[in-house]
Order: sequence, then structure tokens, then C-alpha cells
Amino acid sequence: MAVKSRQYAVIGLGRFGVSVAKTLHQLGYEVLAVDADEEMTQKFSDEVTHVLQADTTDENSLKAMGIRNYDVVIVAIGDDVQANIVTTLLLKEMGVPRIVAKARNELHGKILEKIGADKVIYPERDMGQRVAHNLVSSNVLDYIELSSNLSLVEVKTPSAYVGKSLAQADLRARFGVNVVAMKRSERLIVPPLPSEVMQAEDILIIVGSIEGVQRLEEQE
Amino acid sequence: MAVKSRQYAVIGLGRFGVSVAKTLHQLGYEVLAVDADEEMTQKFSDEVTHVLQADTTDENSLKAMGIRNYDVVIVAIGDDVQANIVTTLLLKEMGVPRIVAKARNELHGKILEKIGADKVIYPERDMGQRVAHNLVSSNVLDYIELSSNLSLVEVKTPSAYVGKSLAQADLRARFGVNVVAMKRSERLIVPPLPSEVMQAEDILIIVGSIEGVQRLEEQE
Ligand SMILES: Nc1ncnc2c1ncn2[C@@H]1O[C@H](COP(=O)(O)OP(=O)(O)OP(=O)(O)O)[C@@H](O)[C@H]1O
Ligand SMILES: Nc1ncnc2c1ncn2[C@@H]1O[C@H](COP(=O)(O)OP(=O)(O)OP(=O)(O)O)[C@@H](O)[C@H]1O
Ligand SMILES: [Ca+2]
Ligand SMILES: [Ca+2]
Ligand SMILES: [Ca+2]
Ligand SMILES: [Ca+2]
Repeated sequence: MAVKSRQYAVIGLGRFGVSVAKTLHQLGYEVLAVDADEEMTQKFSDEVTHVLQADTTDENSLKAMGIRNYDVVIVAIGDDVQANIVTTLLLKEMGVPRIVAKARNELHGKILEKIGADKVIYPERDMGQRVAHNLVSSNVLDYIELSSNLSLVEVKTPSAYVGKSLAQADLRARFGVNVVAMKRSERLIVPPLPSEVMQAEDILIIVGSIEGVQRLEEQE
Repeated sequence: MAVKSRQYAVIGLGRFGVSVAKTLHQLGYEVLAVDADEEMTQKFSDEVTHVLQADTTDENSLKAMGIRNYDVVIVAIGDDVQANIVTTLLLKEMGVPRIVAKARNELHGKILEKIGADKVIYPERDMGQRVAHNLVSSNVLDYIELSSNLSLVEVKTPSAYVGKSLAQADLRARFGVNVVAMKRSERLIVPPLPSEVMQAEDILIIVGSIEGVQRLEEQE
């Protein structure tokens, strides 16, 4: 794949940081990966464009690596909240156009927003919610919270609806949710017509309010 | 909400474990949360059904808490790979019906599967992939791959569509994608009617083929 023009830097090569860096590299972007720990930088030298051992709470190190020339910097330092915050602050002061920072908890996230992070993310919290929803219903294959009152769920067709069309089931009226796609063996039906009849093995992809989706999850 | 019959236990109250436990509790299930660290158990005593301080690598502790009466046990111990593996093995030997274990990396995951974990999860890796995809387009606020050829994207309304109704823009015909929801300041419009007119600050939530979504992402 041709190398694309936008340049990314990832600071902190824990499991999350490594995954972000590897994926961006696979998508064809140039990625600089930075960690204070030499062991970490050696481990991933083959999987990103450049790796560098540096303590990013040190302004001179950040200058020396030319960090302000990167379009997006992801701060993925985890346990050391102070290093995470100091790094974010320095990046902001140096004029990095877009800073994405990982937070431990809501309070930490608020601080990151105040000092200028453009986006704050909570990977463990979000995945915990997703896994919990995936566990509670044997019908539910995947669950994602899209915003504070909107979620998406992938469910096996509840047996009560097999043989009915989407119009007959009328999940919109019943639960305030919308079937946005169906999976039928390898085939995807996007968007399905109201006349589409649900089959036993169909998987429904549904978007709606968190409440509506939860009520639907409880259907057998 | 009435307490439901299935019982869950979560071992390891890091950020991920806490999020799983809280979400299961909010969904109305009984949740036992266990951590070796007393500080952790005190912090979350209000947010789950029961909390217990115990080292789960000790078989007698597991017996004393009656762990085999739980339907699903989630092992969310992170950095201490040995404790994570030993706990999983003991749970299996004691006959816990369903064990979900968090792995640090692929090798760790393989070991967990061999010793009997029913499901192995990689929260940091999965979220890293999601975040990387979210970062690669500037109009794009969120991106989720729903399956090998279906994705969901949250985008700012492309300027060419401001003032047009969904029917006029006809993204379905143009890109094979479907607007499943709109965010207008705090309000959510789910599902939007074809007559809904897009405003400059609207955020569109769209589901479609990965290709169609990518072509749409390139609109200004
Ligand atoms: N000041 C710093 N400069 C550069 N890197 C740092 C600094 N402080 C910590 N790091 C690195 O950040 C990385 C991630 O931190 P840590 O392991 O605490 O996060 P985590 O949230 O537990 O990670 P994950 O959950 O993604 O595995 C570590 O490899 C650590 O060496
Ligand atoms: N033997 C054990 N018995 C019970 N709990 C344990 C044991 N060993 C570790 N734990 C607990 O597991 C919890 C999670 O572990 P750790 O913080 O290493 O994981 P992590 O992957 O960094 O967490 P996260 O990314 O979810 O924040 C810790 O609170 C720790 O006290
Ligand atoms: Ca770590
Ligand atoms: Ca950690
Ligand atoms: Ca983590
Ligand atoms: Ca931790």
C-alpha cells in the first residue's frame, strides 16, 4: 500500500498503544512509536515505521523528535497518570494539531479535556461495557454504545419473529429500534426492505435507544 | 429492575474488570466482584452486589466463596499473567460452567484456551484497532467494523448535503449506505424520516458496506 500523507505518533507502548500503532501502520500510514522503556521499543521495531526510546515528560526530548510535525499524537500512557497529563500538556503547548489521550477514569478525562486534549478515550471502560452486554444474552452477539443514549446490537433473530416480515414485527413501534442490516449466512442485506422476512439463522443489526435495545435483548 | 437469575463473578478490579462488573450490575444481574487488593474492593462496594477481598490463586479461597455456584466467571487479572492462568485453571477444575478470560497477547490467549477458558478476550488490542480506524478520516467521529464487510460511521454532515432532505441526498443510491440516526445538539433522531433536512451541525450515523462508507468519508 502507498504510504499516506498524514503522520501519526503513538506515545506509550502498552497493549492499547501497540494495537493503535500497528493498525495505523497496516492502514498505510507513517507511525512513530515512543516509549520510555527500551524493552518495549525493541519489541515493536518491526511493526511500525519508527520507534524511539524517550521520556515524553521531558520537553527537550519531544522537541528533539520533532513531535510538532506530526498531525495526530495518541497519548497511551496508562498507569502513570502524571506522565500522561504532563505529556498531553507539553504536546498542546508545542502546537500539535490533534491530541488523543487515554484516560484512567472520568476525573482524569476531565483534566485531559481542560488542558486541551481533542479527544479523550476510555478503552477499558468501553470494552468492559461491550463485553458485559455480550455476556448477558445468549442471543446477543455484539453490543456497542454509540452515545449516551444510542446503542447498536447484533442479535440472533428472536424465535417469535421467525417467518415474519420486518413490517409485521414492527420493532420500531414496539421497541423504538431500527433494523439497519441483516446477515444471512455470508450475505449482507443493507438496508433490508420492510417486506424482508426473517429466517431462523438471520442475524439482525439493530440501532436504537439504550432502553429499547435492552428490552429487545430480553426477547427469547 | 428485578434481579435476574444468572449470577456473574468478576475477578480482578482493574479498569476493565470494574466496567464489566458495573455494567452487569446495572443490567440487573447479581455480581460478585473479587480482588486481592483491599483498596480495590473498598472502592467499588457500592457499585456491585457483593465484593470480596481474596487471592484467587488459592483454591481454598475460591471454595470458600462458593465460586462454582456462579454461572459465568470473568477473569480480568491483567499484568500478573501467572495469577491469571492459575485462577482460570482452578475455576475449570472446580467445574465453573462458563469462564471468560482476558489475555495480554496471543500466546497467553492460546494457553488460556488450552486450559479450558470458554472465551478469551483482548480488550486493549480490540479497542486499539477501533481507535486507529476512527483516526484516519477527519470528518469521521467514530468508526466501527461490524463484520468483514459492514461498518458503521459517525460523520459530520458533508457541506454538499446541508439544506437537503435525506430523500434528496439519497445516500442509499449514491453510496449504498443508510442513515440510521442523526444527532442534533443534544437530541437524537432515530430513525430519521426521509423528509428530514440535514443541518450544518448535524451528525449522521451511517451503516453500510466498508467500501460505501469509505467513499462517503471522502466527501467534504
Ligand atoms: N514518561 C513516559 N514517557 C514515555 N513512555 C512512558 C512514560 N511513562 C510510561 N510510559 C510507557 O507507557 C506504556 C503504557 O503504560 P502502562 O503499561 O502503564 O499502561 P496500561 O494502561 O496498563 O497499558 P495497556 O492497558 O494498554 O496495556 C508503558 O510501556 C510505559 O513504559
Ligand atoms: N491473584 C489475584 N487474585 C485476585 N485479584 C488479583 C490477583 N492478582 C491481581 N489481581 C487484581 O487484578 C486487578 C487487575 O490487574 P491489573 O491492574 O494488573 O490489570 P490491567 O490489565 O492493567 O487492568 P486494566 O487495564 O483493566 O485497568 C488488580 O486490581 C489486581 O489487584
Ligand atoms: Ca502495562
Ligand atoms: Ca496496566
Ligand atoms: Ca489496560
Ligand atoms: Ca491496573
